[in-house]
Amino acid sequence: MDRPLFLVSTLAALTAVGSPVFAADTFAVTLDELALANRILAHENVVDGFGHVSVRDPRDATRYLLARSMAPALVTSADILTYSIATDEPIDAQGRVSYLERFIHGGIYRSRPDLNAVVHSHTQSVIPFGVSQVPLRPIFHMAAFLGGDVPIFEIRATAGDATNLLVSSQILGDALARTLGAANVALMRGHGMVAVAGTLHEAVFRAYYTGRDAEIESEALRLGNPIFLSPGEAKAATATQAGLVDRSWALWKNAVTQH
Amino acid sequence: MDRPLFLVSTLAALTAVGSPVFAADTFAVTLDELALANRILAHENVVDGFGHVSVRDPRDATRYLLARSMAPALVTSADILTYSIATDEPIDAQGRVSYLERFIHGGIYRSRPDLNAVVHSHTQSVIPFGVSQVPLRPIFHMAAFLGGDVPIFEIRATAGDATNLLVSSQILGDALARTLGAANVALMRGHGMVAVAGTLHEAVFRAYYTGRDAEIESEALRLGNPIFLSPGEAKAATATQAGLVDRSWALWKNAVTQH
Amino acid sequence: MDRPLFLVSTLAALTAVGSPVFAADTFAVTLDELALANRILAHENVVDGFGHVSVRDPRDATRYLLARSMAPALVTSADILTYSIATDEPIDAQGRVSYLERFIHGGIYRSRPDLNAVVHSHTQSVIPFGVSQVPLRPIFHMAAFLGGDVPIFEIRATAGDATNLLVSSQILGDALARTLGAANVALMRGHGMVAVAGTLHEAVFRAYYTGRDAEIESEALRLGNPIFLSPGEAKAATATQAGLVDRSWALWKNAVTQH
Amino acid sequence: MDRPLFLVSTLAALTAVGSPVFAADTFAVTLDELALANRILAHENVVDGFGHVSVRDPRDATRYLLARSMAPALVTSADILTYSIATDEPIDAQGRVSYLERFIHGGIYRSRPDLNAVVHSHTQSVIPFGVSQVPLRPIFHMAAFLGGDVPIFEIRATAGDATNLLVSSQILGDALARTLGAANVALMRGHGMVAVAGTLHEAVFRAYYTGRDAEIESEALRLGNPIFLSPGEAKAATATQAGLVDRSWALWKNAVTQH
Repeated sequence: MDRPLFLVSTLAALTAVGSPVFAADTFAVTLDELALANRILAHENVVDGFGHVSVRDPRDATRYLLARSMAPALVTSADILTYSIATDEPIDAQGRVSYLERFIHGGIYRSRPDLNAVVHSHTQSVIPFGVSQVPLRPIFHMAAFLGGDVPIFEIRATAGDATNLLVSSQILGDALARTLGAANVALMRGHGMVAVAGTLHEAVFRAYYTGRDAEIESEALRLGNPIFLSPGEAKAATATQAGLVDRSWALWKNAVTQH
Repeated sequence: MDRPLFLVSTLAALTAVGSPVFAADTFAVTLDELALANRILAHENVVDGFGHVSVRDPRDATRYLLARSMAPALVTSADILTYSIATDEPIDAQGRVSYLERFIHGGIYRSRPDLNAVVHSHTQSVIPFGVSQVPLRPIFHMAAFLGGDVPIFEIRATAGDATNLLVSSQILGDALARTLGAANVALMRGHGMVAVAGTLHEAVFRAYYTGRDAEIESEALRLGNPIFLSPGEAKAATATQAGLVDRSWALWKNAVTQH
Repeated sequence: MDRPLFLVSTLAALTAVGSPVFAADTFAVTLDELALANRILAHENVVDGFGHVSVRDPRDATRYLLARSMAPALVTSADILTYSIATDEPIDAQGRVSYLERFIHGGIYRSRPDLNAVVHSHTQSVIPFGVSQVPLRPIFHMAAFLGGDVPIFEIRATAGDATNLLVSSQILGDALARTLGAANVALMRGHGMVAVAGTLHEAVFRAYYTGRDAEIESEALRLGNPIFLSPGEAKAATATQAGLVDRSWALWKNAVTQH
Repeated sequence: MDRPLFLVSTLAALTAVGSPVFAADTFAVTLDELALANRILAHENVVDGFGHVSVRDPRDATRYLLARSMAPALVTSADILTYSIATDEPIDAQGRVSYLERFIHGGIYRSRPDLNAVVHSHTQSVIPFGVSQVPLRPIFHMAAFLGGDVPIFEIRATAGDATNLLVSSQILGDALARTLGAANVALMRGHGMVAVAGTLHEAVFRAYYTGRDAEIESEALRLGNPIFLSPGEAKAATATQAGLVDRSWALWKNAVTQH
């Protein structure tokens, strides 16, 4: 909880999240945590060979850290590059290939100074909600952060109906960020989702429980007329869970470091 | 079967359950079994990073044993604290953080002297039944203990529609216990469930098979007009299964102690 | 294929199955194979802590071999007892507890001299078909042995609506066998299923693919108006697969002997 | 990308696929890759004990390489035989048994000189679409290669309604190839599917993501009125993904070589 306030502009967000990731004195710890986040997301089936996770650079709030183009399950701290939020280009590419969709991260960091971590995934249970007219909504307290109807990014609105669906430019990254707005999660039609938070641990937590919520909502819709969280419940449960995020992290970390 | 009758007030319940947990002469065995129950519930996907399991203290029926606030998969016997059933406060906190929802356990033990174990979980397949108008019912003999329509705890009835959904006070714990009544399982709307029994092994068994029943009922409802157990079948099969609980325990114990 | 014809009365059946189980010269191999079948059924999720598998005794066609009452995943050859088909009682109990439902096995062996192996399971995907009016039918070639509509055993017809649903007597075992008739699989309402064959390998194969067929049929019914195998296709594919059963056995054996 | 152009007739196809399988100087590498493909398909649940994968012989474009009849999970490079595309017979059987359905491979290679790899599987989620009137279509960008409505092979049209459903002759192999036409995937009614590509890595990728697409489409259909990829999106995303196939391969290879 008591961590150096390296990032004054996001102070309000940081005081609520309780993650140790920014508490570390050293950059090396952040790299290790980000590599761990990659492996956790793969192990928990949030991502498969695709998807990525970034964190704002604790040394410089105008930059973000992101792995080179590779499967998240295989990422180590040596695979992580530093990117400019302004340009979405690596500061020093070291000859490595960047993700085609790094623009997701820059677009969101540019529009949301309160955020320090972004997950992009193709979580299977979430995709049906991105292609249908049925909104994804919080149906149990663990997904309270969804707030209400989750916004859906339709790439056709920005780039027409013959794209490869990838957020492969700053124009598209900014359009996605506008769809996300002040929300914690946005779906991407025919593609996947993004989950964001003030800390890396909470972004991973939100990506994970978005998938669970979609599975439960799908099933509940078949039973019929489900009761969703009220706005007040969503708000109260989101605040409570910020303090519980590290319990999941400890569990997930144990699973990937023991195998 | 032949165990010291340390708990005279629950004698009637104990004679039917056949678990070795209370047969042990030593408190240490109960701690080990409770730690094992935590790991089994995680390994069998009854709980994820959240959820908890308690057992009435074999040394003192006015107390219960419950892990400190942590993911069940990681619990060892050193993590278990003793709580007062009257107050839901730890006898000696040893500087450890308690679960926010320990009041589930005290509320149930206060109202049900016949019970010696309580599981609280967010079992995924069960949650849709907690948010819909379709009752969860016993559809196969392994879930006969559900009896009939499983009651649903609606926190809004006690605390309004802007809570964080957690059973975070004795008022809420008592309200949940009233919903449970004489049943073996209660659902919690937008949250999860509780399963209770006269022994730790049977509470774990009931929590596990409640999840299976929900999965089977969901599927059977889609086929249409399923036949559920009759009241007589539910009663007869529940009595039979009490003697079979330890077969599952042996299997599940083997799985978590071999990894 | 060339095996001692120890069982003249079932010669016709044996010539079609190609399993090595009866080819062995020694009883010890049969015990090992039966223990392996138990572990395979558990590993492939056909059974959980409950369910059992038997084989006709290669030394004496009036007897069958079945594990003592325990979880199938933990069975070794030392746990296997010999039972009289006439009485369903162990020849020498060695102080061990028998399965409450051993009568399933005797009932079927008494009525079907063509059979040499019986699996009883609570396979989850099959149970919904046992409680609904929608027949389980062969929807892909791997489950061709289902033939057509799979019969359902309703214990209420024999024993009323207040039983514990278990086949716990010879009267019930014989009633189940009458429901099975000449089929390879029968469902048991609110309980599970039986799968039978001329060899142990094929009985395991049939139990496994009955579960897969149920999953596929459930999904296909939701898409609407599925095409099932014709009677001619079911017959032809069943004959072909008898020669392919050992390919699955080799795979499954490898999985349980490597862990 | 820079590989010896051993196969002039398929040059156009090869320049677009970017797989290292044909870049190798040695035949031994192709055998190792094909054995790996077998194990990957099993590990990722594309195949179970049945199904097979072939690659065009890098030394002779009139031949293909395919394992002897066995479960894919157990295939090593020593199990691979060479077949004539003209006859579907092994060049040197070495006393080994061939797959009954090797004709799938020959039929496709004869009609599609642009292809160098073929996967046949019974992927569970795909089978319902093969027996219903609901077309399988690309619902997310990872399955863009499906193009549009996936064709379905109905064996009854060629061989009547009393077959064993197997593609067990050149007549049937050619009929299947006609159904496939210029597509990347074809379903087989009551049986399974084939996925094809210019490289082994991409055929495995396509087989894998066909299964994911079926799961997502099934779920999306239940939510109602899903938006599928437009023809332009399917084309653009297919082209992009050809360059990303090896990221999945690296992940899957790591999984099977670490266990």
